[in-house]
Amino acid sequence: MASNDFPILRWGIVGTGVISSWFVTDLSLDRPDRKANHIIQAIGSSSIEKGTTFMDNNIGKNLKRPTVYGSYQELFADTNVDIVYIGTPHAFHNQNCLDAIRAGKHVLCEKPFAINARETKEVFEEAKQKGVFIMEAMWTRFFPLVQKLRELIHSEKAIGDVQRVFCDFSMPMGIASLPASSRLKNPALGAGSLLDIGIYSLTWVLLALEGEFSHDTPDVTANQRLEDGVDMATSALLLYEDGRQGIATCSTLSKTPSTFCRIEGSKVSSKWMELRPRHPLLLQSK
Amino acid sequence: MASNDFPILRWGIVGTGVISSWFVTDLSLDRPDRKANHIIQAIGSSSIEKGTTFMDNNIGKNLKRPTVYGSYQELFADTNVDIVYIGTPHAFHNQNCLDAIRAGKHVLCEKPFAINARETKEVFEEAKQKGVFIMEAMWTRFFPLVQKLRELIHSEKAIGDVQRVFCDFSMPMGIASLPASSRLKNPALGAGSLLDIGIYSLTWVLLALEGEFSHDTPDVTANQRLEDGVDMATSALLLYEDGRQGIATCSTLSKTPSTFCRIEGSKVSSKWMELRPRHPLLLQSK
Repeated sequence: MASNDFPILRWGIVGTGVISSWFVTDLSLDRPDRKANHIIQAIGSSSIEKGTTFMDNNIGKNLKRPTVYGSYQELFADTNVDIVYIGTPHAFHNQNCLDAIRAGKHVLCEKPFAINARETKEVFEEAKQKGVFIMEAMWTRFFPLVQKLRELIHSEKAIGDVQRVFCDFSMPMGIASLPASSRLKNPALGAGSLLDIGIYSLTWVLLALEGEFSHDTPDVTANQRLEDGVDMATSALLLYEDGRQGIATCSTLSKTPSTFCRIEGSKVSSKWMELRPRHPLLLQSK
Repeated sequence: MASNDFPILRWGIVGTGVISSWFVTDLSLDRPDRKANHIIQAIGSSSIEKGTTFMDNNIGKNLKRPTVYGSYQELFADTNVDIVYIGTPHAFHNQNCLDAIRAGKHVLCEKPFAINARETKEVFEEAKQKGVFIMEAMWTRFFPLVQKLRELIHSEKAIGDVQRVFCDFSMPMGIASLPASSRLKNPALGAGSLLDIGIYSLTWVLLALEGEFSHDTPDVTANQRLEDGVDMATSALLLYEDGRQGIATCSTLSKTPSTFCRIEGSKVSSKWMELRPRHPLLLQSK
């Protein structure tokens, strides 16, 4: 499987929840278009038992057995780890990132990258100082659909100049009936629609409004429906200097409409995408 | 046609454009459910010729001939006029309303009622002082569909408590190619998407979020795409103290989607209306 033509990246996986399992499965695929040989070098969990179970369930029998650690700090200290994937809950991202960076590791951190702008800035500054690579693991940006969309919208200008984009991503989560300790209910764990799903609405709006390497900064205004300090629904407006507008909304009380994103261009009066953010099925224009 | 069982209202029509012609036609219908006998008593235009043409085109042959005036002031001075309908362009509403009120007339004024809040307040204060009736002619609020919708949403609570409402009303108007004097291009005439069509988005959002006589005041935040001082697109967010949210948008650059309004309630995950604001065709829930 491994080829000597590519650099080898030895991954340390931090956090052993379901998102980490998806990541490890995808990373282990034998993709012909890969640019590196990826090795799952180590797994860091809150206990050796959980880490071992994760390994047994997610590392293919034909792959090298990773080292399993019962703490994240041991993983960060492992000199055989080149890059760390952080799949812990939102509220721990800041600390996990800082610990990894200070140990000299490159970092790929799950979305949302941090709980607020201050934390994000802190992590990026630390990474810059240490000279390590850091990135948010926003998979949406790597969907083949998104690549195609970028081509259509920004390179081919299929609908002219993009003028306005709507995106609503909503999912009823029954938060009222969850235990107070739930990640979806506990503000200390970063609970709320914005960080959990609103980030997708924002991502689609930004993808559609901005080119590949945009340095525009929109004015942003927003409001939130709060219950016990947790946002049940967030609505945000983006306005760029040239007039482009974004309307990004999310809710944990309702269900995403089948058409969750609408992109309007100057050439035709409207272009629609009909897809679900996690499993894009269909690109349709009307 | 006229019945002695009802009070008689003698109307003075101010402005002889297309909207006034629709109003006069509708007012002259022999409706069995009428609460008054309406008489078109006088027509006020910028010239006798225009006023006479309007009369010939819009007043049925079997109806009493109204007096035609070549100025609005003469109409306001007519003691046989009880109530004035104002169908002039936006920017003149304030002055027309004040003139009518000062002449002791009741007033029904086309939407938008005025160019800004200051003008609106001024007119309402004048009406209060003179003890005359005044109302914005927002026909949407009187559609049979709206009556039914109010019943379903607010009385029967068919979708539970309303949580979030989206409405977009957009219409490509080719403003760039219009002459500078156009009502749609001249800021002095109240040009812009908000006053022309955004008012419908706001009306639908308010109708769906509020009950019949709501005294809630939402927080409102908005942005606008401006070109030469005229808004090409306006996006507004409404937030009520109990968490209800409204997203009202409009644009003169794009086309309203077939589903222009989405109403979300607590009972079912979503309820949609599919209709056009001026000619509602269909009420559909999914």
